[in-house]
Amino acid sequence: MNGQDSLVQPLLTDFYQITMCYAYWKTGTHNEPAVFDVFFRKNPFQGEFCVFAGLEDCLRFVENFRFSQSDIDYIKKILPENAETSFFEYLETLDGSRLTIEAVREGSVVFPKVPLITIEGPLAMCQLLETSILNLVNFSSLVATNAARFRQAAGSKLQLLEFGLRRAQGPNGGLTASKYCYIGGFNATSNVLAGKLYGIPVKGTQAHSFICSFTSPNELKIRGLNHKTTNEPADLFELSIAKRSWILEQFPWGVISSEVSDGELTAFVAYAIAFPDTFLALIDTYDVLRSGVVNFVAVSLALHDLGYRSMGCRIDSGDLSYLSKELRNVFIKVAGLKTEFNFFETMPIVASNDINEETIMSLNEQQHEINAFGVGTHLVTCQKQPALGCVYKLVAQSSQPKIKLSQDVKKITIPGKKKCYRIYGKNGYAILDLMMLENEPEPKPNEQILCRHPFEESKRALVNASKIERLHNVYWKDGELTAALPTLNEIKEHVNDSINRTLRQDHKRYLNPTPYKVSVSERLYEFLHAFWLQNAPIGQLE
Amino acid sequence: MNGQDSLVQPLLTDFYQITMCYAYWKTGTHNEPAVFDVFFRKNPFQGEFCVFAGLEDCLRFVENFRFSQSDIDYIKKILPENAETSFFEYLETLDGSRLTIEAVREGSVVFPKVPLITIEGPLAMCQLLETSILNLVNFSSLVATNAARFRQAAGSKLQLLEFGLRRAQGPNGGLTASKYCYIGGFNATSNVLAGKLYGIPVKGTQAHSFICSFTSPNELKIRGLNHKTTNEPADLFELSIAKRSWILEQFPWGVISSEVSDGELTAFVAYAIAFPDTFLALIDTYDVLRSGVVNFVAVSLALHDLGYRSMGCRIDSGDLSYLSKELRNVFIKVAGLKTEFNFFETMPIVASNDINEETIMSLNEQQHEINAFGVGTHLVTCQKQPALGCVYKLVAQSSQPKIKLSQDVKKITIPGKKKCYRIYGKNGYAILDLMMLENEPEPKPNEQILCRHPFEESKRALVNASKIERLHNVYWKDGELTAALPTLNEIKEHVNDSINRTLRQDHKRYLNPTPYKVSVSERLYEFLHAFWLQNAPIGQLE
Repeated sequence: MNGQDSLVQPLLTDFYQITMCYAYWKTGTHNEPAVFDVFFRKNPFQGEFCVFAGLEDCLRFVENFRFSQSDIDYIKKILPENAETSFFEYLETLDGSRLTIEAVREGSVVFPKVPLITIEGPLAMCQLLETSILNLVNFSSLVATNAARFRQAAGSKLQLLEFGLRRAQGPNGGLTASKYCYIGGFNATSNVLAGKLYGIPVKGTQAHSFICSFTSPNELKIRGLNHKTTNEPADLFELSIAKRSWILEQFPWGVISSEVSDGELTAFVAYAIAFPDTFLALIDTYDVLRSGVVNFVAVSLALHDLGYRSMGCRIDSGDLSYLSKELRNVFIKVAGLKTEFNFFETMPIVASNDINEETIMSLNEQQHEINAFGVGTHLVTCQKQPALGCVYKLVAQSSQPKIKLSQDVKKITIPGKKKCYRIYGKNGYAILDLMMLENEPEPKPNEQILCRHPFEESKRALVNASKIERLHNVYWKDGELTAALPTLNEIKEHVNDSINRTLRQDHKRYLNPTPYKVSVSERLYEFLHAFWLQNAPIGQLE
Repeated sequence: MNGQDSLVQPLLTDFYQITMCYAYWKTGTHNEPAVFDVFFRKNPFQGEFCVFAGLEDCLRFVENFRFSQSDIDYIKKILPENAETSFFEYLETLDGSRLTIEAVREGSVVFPKVPLITIEGPLAMCQLLETSILNLVNFSSLVATNAARFRQAAGSKLQLLEFGLRRAQGPNGGLTASKYCYIGGFNATSNVLAGKLYGIPVKGTQAHSFICSFTSPNELKIRGLNHKTTNEPADLFELSIAKRSWILEQFPWGVISSEVSDGELTAFVAYAIAFPDTFLALIDTYDVLRSGVVNFVAVSLALHDLGYRSMGCRIDSGDLSYLSKELRNVFIKVAGLKTEFNFFETMPIVASNDINEETIMSLNEQQHEINAFGVGTHLVTCQKQPALGCVYKLVAQSSQPKIKLSQDVKKITIPGKKKCYRIYGKNGYAILDLMMLENEPEPKPNEQILCRHPFEESKRALVNASKIERLHNVYWKDGELTAALPTLNEIKEHVNDSINRTLRQDHKRYLNPTPYKVSVSERLYEFLHAFWLQNAPIGQLE
């Protein structure tokens, strides 16, 4: 089940798709065979790669494409009154059965200009899909790329947790973000619905309001916790108080007892009684080093006495690098007190609070001691660039190539249906992507291939490929899915492979990454430029 | 029907709400009466106001709040195995029946620190609502505020059209944006589903792909259009060609016929045949001034001959100010050719392409001739600030006030349940918002009221109010809605009133707007500061 099913329907589109559909139909071109390419022009986040996501959502959309009667009634209301009634009968017949959809495998790294998806079918039907497909690909790919960039910054060992639901752009903004952050490289989400719908691991501990809700020990109605193995009853609160006194005597904490909040200790005890095996405490409500960590160590030692082990602590404010290092020092000291406290040395520290790619890199430089990041706003809203500019362009109609001209060369489309390849070098990394005319012979490994920049005449290179991969597969034909769709975890694995095994480090680095080359064959270059000149009008200056 | 119903459900929450709920339940505090405030700390977009939106969505969420059996089965899976089974029976009983919800009227301008919504009820139940309510308020309010700012920049006369679906953050990001941009001050949306679900006017014309799909007149299978009143048949293409020749002779256009695209003319004719009464053409596919406008005038004059009137043209690239002024010059010249062409003088010009608040202001300075803006990415993703930081804080429990302390004064919460008022001055504009203790006597007009800055001791003022408005109404009590909810158009009207009739201009200006004052009564000030000191631990420095 897909959580956004109810919204992804034919009317989730721009009105002009419907007016254009009517105009195509009215003037008789609606059934002309057409080819549309979905691609973007610029990698997001000032980077040099993008992760392609949202393909399954697009295919499910096409699979379920049917105007309902109430949709058609609504369209009747918004089209001019004199619209012909047989148009509405035509709309009723529309579905995905005459479409063929090729696409890059979901989760692949992708680059500007190369079609992510190519849709062939009757002109008007293809046109109707534009907005929904762009909506489904743009944000999914953007947020997956963002997550992959956070993963690059954090390295492979740290846990990355997505905590963005409350700041996401609506319920579905949150759900989409949780799903595609997971495939992009996050380990888990706080979003329970995403866990239920997609099987993503969910994680969460407690909020400041939980800590604030306990002011004094009197508010604790239950204090007992049985020993994990002997089952012997104990008073966890009393035990924690005793541990706190003991630990404060062991080494110079520099805190006086009036600074250590009893309300906080009470809240920790309440949480530990509920979750003795998975105790993880938020320790920054009062003061991390003068209250939170003292209470956390106290309750952790009490739990240890009763056969349980704490899972860690979370800080959500302050200087995360400094605090994590101070916490690690405390934990190492505690570990040094008794052999059985050894586990304290590696006590997990979770950090949250306005984390972005740059924060993680800065924390890395400061050699932080954080084990997991909880990331919200910057991740799910893609603060640095909140939209990917995928476009959906007509490239052929009735077997004739079509070109969208523009005075801005970057905006010119590459006409015609194309075959696309990824060319790999000896070291196993991808060298460039190559687009060719549909009827050209396939390029072969270990033969010289002339690759040209699509617009800059002098940029040419001969490439000797050690491996060549065709980029597109047919996913939909004759009204059905023609390829098995990967699971979410398979896509996640593919993202990881695609970024780490096929993409060279210099394309991924944060500062001034090397652009990955996207090229065309000699024949496509010649065709593109001849066709461009043929279509561009000749002006007159004086 | 609300399009996001299927997603807005109790599991659309952070997992820690459920773990905290379990801990409250396990330690017996789950039914303690609690009060939570929803508020934000900083106005968005470097401005000094925010539009409150999303209230109805929150109330519908509470109205429908019930864990389903499959939700509970899923929660069982993600909580530790030893979680007590009677907790799940407790979850089954939970609904909104024991909650009381007060809120500011939806669509009002609101300011930092003042509660937008106050939720009272059993501690654990209130806690469970946090994430969903923040998700529903944060983006709705943000995008409504963004739309209101675009409206301020554009002035009241221009049409503002929301075209953002393809770049929105997922299907619901798009739908939420369409709905709340409308209430914020937009006239219409391109999003058909938003039109169907919420009754918002939908608008749209044609895309570049429509223009590109016609290369030559031969592709036009139908050319006929009957006269609107006489019903006499005509060939619209031939007529348009004739009009084009005629118009090119009338005044120096500076274009040669090879520059004027026949494909574009063909596309315009096709569209005009389909929509003779609502013809609006996209004129920048080839060259606005050397092709698009010539073809547009030709088809418009042909339609005029047949009794129809064009609705305008759209430009989606280039220097929008320059082009709009050049277009207006052409239209004025055409209007001057014959009295019956007078309508050309005011021919609507729609502009789109990366429009933001600053673009509109810059275009205003250049005295553009645009009549309507189509706005996408910047509007719906709120590029300038993609998240509003509303928080949900515990302010009282078991009739005792609660405070969230922080070393950052801006993050300290104002404890206890509060009464909030908006104080108006003689000129009818709002002067400040005032928060008071719940049991204080109501402030009265025409009496001196001492208003204090909540944290800065020396900032005090005596205010003589000419009108005082209580900010909160009770919307939900004893399991039902207690106030009629306004329609979308009523909310839209209220946004307009609230911004234009109650908010002084200096709070709204783009550059260095004056902050609107949010104050507390003398008694709340005294209480807040005494309570703060009472709860803050005393540290020791040496």
